[in-house]
Amino acid sequence: MNILYDERVDGALPPVDKTALLEVLRQRLPDLDLLHQTEDLKPYECDGLSAYRTTPMLVALPRHIEQVQELLRICHERRVPVVARGAGTGLSGGALPLEQGVLLVMARFNQILHIDPAARTARVQPGVRNLAISQAAAPFGLYYAPDPSSQIACSIGGNVAENAGGVHCLKYGLTVHNLLKVEILSVEGERLTLGSDALDAPGFDLLALFTGSEGLLGIITEVTVKLLPKPQLAKVLLAAFDSVEKAGHAVADIIAAGIIPGGLEMMDNLAIRAAEDFIHAGYPVDAEAILLCELDGVEADVHDDCDRVRAVLERAGATEVRQARDEAERVRFWAGRKNAFPAVGRLSPDYYCMDGTIPRRALPGVLKAIAALSAEYQLRVANVFHAGDGNMHPLILFDANQPGELDRAEALGGKILELCVAVGGSITGEHGVGREKINQMCAQFNSDELTLFHAVKAAFDPGGLLNPGKNIPTLHRCAEFGAMHVHAGQLPFPELERF
Amino acid sequence: MNILYDERVDGALPPVDKTALLEVLRQRLPDLDLLHQTEDLKPYECDGLSAYRTTPMLVALPRHIEQVQELLRICHERRVPVVARGAGTGLSGGALPLEQGVLLVMARFNQILHIDPAARTARVQPGVRNLAISQAAAPFGLYYAPDPSSQIACSIGGNVAENAGGVHCLKYGLTVHNLLKVEILSVEGERLTLGSDALDAPGFDLLALFTGSEGLLGIITEVTVKLLPKPQLAKVLLAAFDSVEKAGHAVADIIAAGIIPGGLEMMDNLAIRAAEDFIHAGYPVDAEAILLCELDGVEADVHDDCDRVRAVLERAGATEVRQARDEAERVRFWAGRKNAFPAVGRLSPDYYCMDGTIPRRALPGVLKAIAALSAEYQLRVANVFHAGDGNMHPLILFDANQPGELDRAEALGGKILELCVAVGGSITGEHGVGREKINQMCAQFNSDELTLFHAVKAAFDPGGLLNPGKNIPTLHRCAEFGAMHVHAGQLPFPELERF
Repeated sequence: MNILYDERVDGALPPVDKTALLEVLRQRLPDLDLLHQTEDLKPYECDGLSAYRTTPMLVALPRHIEQVQELLRICHERRVPVVARGAGTGLSGGALPLEQGVLLVMARFNQILHIDPAARTARVQPGVRNLAISQAAAPFGLYYAPDPSSQIACSIGGNVAENAGGVHCLKYGLTVHNLLKVEILSVEGERLTLGSDALDAPGFDLLALFTGSEGLLGIITEVTVKLLPKPQLAKVLLAAFDSVEKAGHAVADIIAAGIIPGGLEMMDNLAIRAAEDFIHAGYPVDAEAILLCELDGVEADVHDDCDRVRAVLERAGATEVRQARDEAERVRFWAGRKNAFPAVGRLSPDYYCMDGTIPRRALPGVLKAIAALSAEYQLRVANVFHAGDGNMHPLILFDANQPGELDRAEALGGKILELCVAVGGSITGEHGVGREKINQMCAQFNSDELTLFHAVKAAFDPGGLLNPGKNIPTLHRCAEFGAMHVHAGQLPFPELERF
Repeated sequence: MNILYDERVDGALPPVDKTALLEVLRQRLPDLDLLHQTEDLKPYECDGLSAYRTTPMLVALPRHIEQVQELLRICHERRVPVVARGAGTGLSGGALPLEQGVLLVMARFNQILHIDPAARTARVQPGVRNLAISQAAAPFGLYYAPDPSSQIACSIGGNVAENAGGVHCLKYGLTVHNLLKVEILSVEGERLTLGSDALDAPGFDLLALFTGSEGLLGIITEVTVKLLPKPQLAKVLLAAFDSVEKAGHAVADIIAAGIIPGGLEMMDNLAIRAAEDFIHAGYPVDAEAILLCELDGVEADVHDDCDRVRAVLERAGATEVRQARDEAERVRFWAGRKNAFPAVGRLSPDYYCMDGTIPRRALPGVLKAIAALSAEYQLRVANVFHAGDGNMHPLILFDANQPGELDRAEALGGKILELCVAVGGSITGEHGVGREKINQMCAQFNSDELTLFHAVKAAFDPGGLLNPGKNIPTLHRCAEFGAMHVHAGQLPFPELERF
C-alpha cells in the first residue's frame, strides 16, 4: 500500500537537523538510550499496519518520566515532531514514525504500580501489557475487561491512545469506559492529571477527550484503570446459519430480548473455513455464518440466559445450536475467533482488515451491500466481527503482486467505510483512524466539525508537534481527496439503493 | 448567599445596549417570543440553587432551531453573552442568568422524536423531561437509566449539560455513559453532530467532552440516548447501623464481594429522622446510619444477590436488615431517600446541599472528618449520599438570619469539598460546578490544567460568549481566592491528620 504521508502537516514544520538534535539530546540527556543507525531503526518502521512504513529519524527509549519531559522540552524548542509508540501493535498506523521526527518508545515504562482491590483499580505505567493487568489482578478475583485480540502484546498506553475494544466491549465498554485517571505530559513536558480516583471529575471531561486521541494531545505516563470482579461462570453458544442475513437478524433478536451477552461475534463462511483450517476449533464449515454468544455472570443467571438465547437462536432459524461442553471447548471456540485474522491471512498473499461500526439494525443490509461490492471489485471479503455492538471487521483478500489489486483493495475498503457512515455508523470501532483512515474522516465529518477538531488539537498542541498527519485530516486534504461528506446517511449512497 | 459574579469574565465583554438588541431581535426574528419586562423576568432569576439570583437582561423562548441559530448569530455579531436554560432545576447555578446577557430557554423543544426499540435508542429534543423518556420507552419494556432526584421536572438537555447522575449511576453510569449522539449549535449558530448512532466515533471524543460542559461549548438541540431493558425484578434491603463508620465499611464490603447493586445509598441519623418525619418511610429513627441497597436484574440473580448482600451486611455489624416486603414498601423506602433534601430542609430555615465524590475506601474517614468540621463550625450536617459510588451530599443546616451563619455555612461547604479533593476525590459528583463551586475548582486543578480548560473553551467559543463565569474559573480568580491546590492529596490537609 502507498504511504500516504500528509506533507501539508509536516511541511508546516521546519526541516530537522538530525546531527544537531542528536548532539543536544546527548548533552542534556546523557543517560537516554537513542537509536539512530539505519539498521537499528528497521524494527520501528511500522506498527501492526505493516503496509505503511517510514524510517524514523531517531528512536528514543526513555526509562524515567524526567527523561520524557526533557525530551519533549527539547523537541518543543526545536519544533521537532514526536510520535509516541507503545507495543507497536496498532492496526491503523497510529504509531507510524516520521522521517523528520522522534519516535518516543514508552515500552520500558512497564511497571504495575498498585492494585487496589477495595477500590477495584490498577495504577500502571503505559508500557504494561493489557493481559498483564488482568494477570496481576487475578489473585484478587478481579480483571481488566477490554480485551483486544492483541492483548498478549499490546500495552495499556496504546489502548488508551486508540480507545481499544475487544470481544467483551458490548457488555463492559471500550477502554474509555474502564478508565479512571490518566497522567500525561503536555507537548511542553508539563505534568497533567486527567480524571480522578473518584466517579466523576469537574470541568471538561478531558479524560474522555484524551482517550482515543491517538497521540495528538499528549504523552501518557500513567494510567489508572477500573477492574471488574471475574464472572463466576462463562458459557458460550455456537449457532450456525444458512445465510448471513439470518445471523444478522438473530443478533438483533438477542439484544431485543434484553440480554447483554459478554461477547456476541459473527463470522461468515470464508472466515469460518479459514479459522477451522488453522485452529480446528470445531466450527461447522458448511455454515454460511456462525454466531458465538458468550453469557457470563453469576451461575443461576448464566444458565437462565443460555436457555433464553438458545430459544431466540432457534426461532431466528439457526440450523444448529451447540453449547461448549466444557471450558476447553469454550476456549477453543474463542481461539478460532481470536485467530480469525491470521487464519484468513493464510488464504491470500495479502489482506486488508477494515474496522467500521454500524447501527445493529443495519447489519443484514450492510452485509448484503458488502457482498455486492466484493463482486464489483472482484476481491473476496471475509467478515469477522463484534456483531453485538455493530463493530465490523471485513477482511479484504488481495495479492499485492497482481497489478491493480492493491489499489482495488484500498478503494473497496474506502467504499465499505463510507457505507458504514451512510447507514449512520462510523469509520472505526476500535482500531482508530491513524494514517490508514485519514481520508475517510472527510466522509465522516463536515468541515465545521473538522475545524473544531483542529481547534481542540491546537488547544493542547498549538505547534502541531504531536503525531502530525494522523487522526484528523487537514481541510486541504479533504478538499483534494474530494470526499463527499456522507454523514449519517444525509446524502444518498448508491450502493444502498440496491436493497 | 452572596452572588459571587465573576466580573472579570463579564468585564471583558462590552456593555450590551438592551434597546438596540431588542430592536434587532424583533426585526430579524419577528416570531421569537421575548421577555424583557422586570415582572416577566422574575421567574428566571435563578435555577435550583436559589441562593444565587440575577435578573436576566432578556429571556428568549424559541420554538424552532432556525430561531436559535439566528439568535446566536445576532448575539455573536454584537458580542452578547448567552446562557442556555432547560427546566431550571440545576443545583449549582449553571443556568444563573446574566444581567448583561440573553437567557435562552430551550423548554419548548419538548418533543420525543423517535423511539427505536431494536437499536434501543430514543432521539429527543433537549426540553424533554428525563422521566418522560422512560415513560415513552415503557411500552417497549425499556427505560432511560440516569435518574436524578429531579427527574420528574429536569430536562435531558440540562442532564447532558451537567452530566447528571442519580441513584442508579453506580450500576448504569452517568449521563455520559448513556448517550450516543448530541446535535448542537456552535456559538456562531452552525449545526454540529457529536457522536454517532454507532458504538464509537472517530476523531476526538467531543461527545464526552461536551457532556457536563455546563453550557460553555454550545447549545444542545437534539439528544440521542441509549435505553436499557427494564430489570425483571428489583428488591431493596434496608440495613441499620449503630455507627456511620460501620455503614461505610459495609458499602466497601458489598462492592468487594463483587456485587454491583442497582443503587446503594446511605443516610445518617439526622437525615433518617428528617425523612421519617416527612415521608413515614418506616426507617429506624434510632439508627446512626442506614443503607438502602437495591438489587435488580433477572429474578434468579436478584434473589441470589439479596442473600449475599444480607450476609455481608450482617457480618459488617448491621443491627437490623430488612427486605422490602412488597413493591409498595420498596417505593416507600426510596421515597424517603429521594425526598431527603426537602425533608432535611424542614429542620432548619436554610440548608446548603454539597456534592462531592471520594474514593470508596475513604468513606469512613471522611465521615469522621465531616463530623469534626461540623463541630468546629458549629453547624449541623446531615449526610445523604450515593454511597456505592462515593458521591456524597452533605447538607449543611444554617439560618441566614443569624449573623455569620451564612458565611460559616459557605466556608464549611468549601472545606468539605477540599477534603474530598485531598483524599483523591472531586468537588462534584453530579450537580456540576456552575457558579457555586467555581472557587473550589482552584483547589481541584493546578494552573496548567486550568489553562488547558480555557484553551479547550476557546476552541469552541473564542469570544467567551457562552455561559461566561461558570464552570472554569479564571486564573486571576484563583490567585485572588488564594486557594491551595490540594489535588489528589499531594498537599497535606490538616483536618485529615485527626484520624
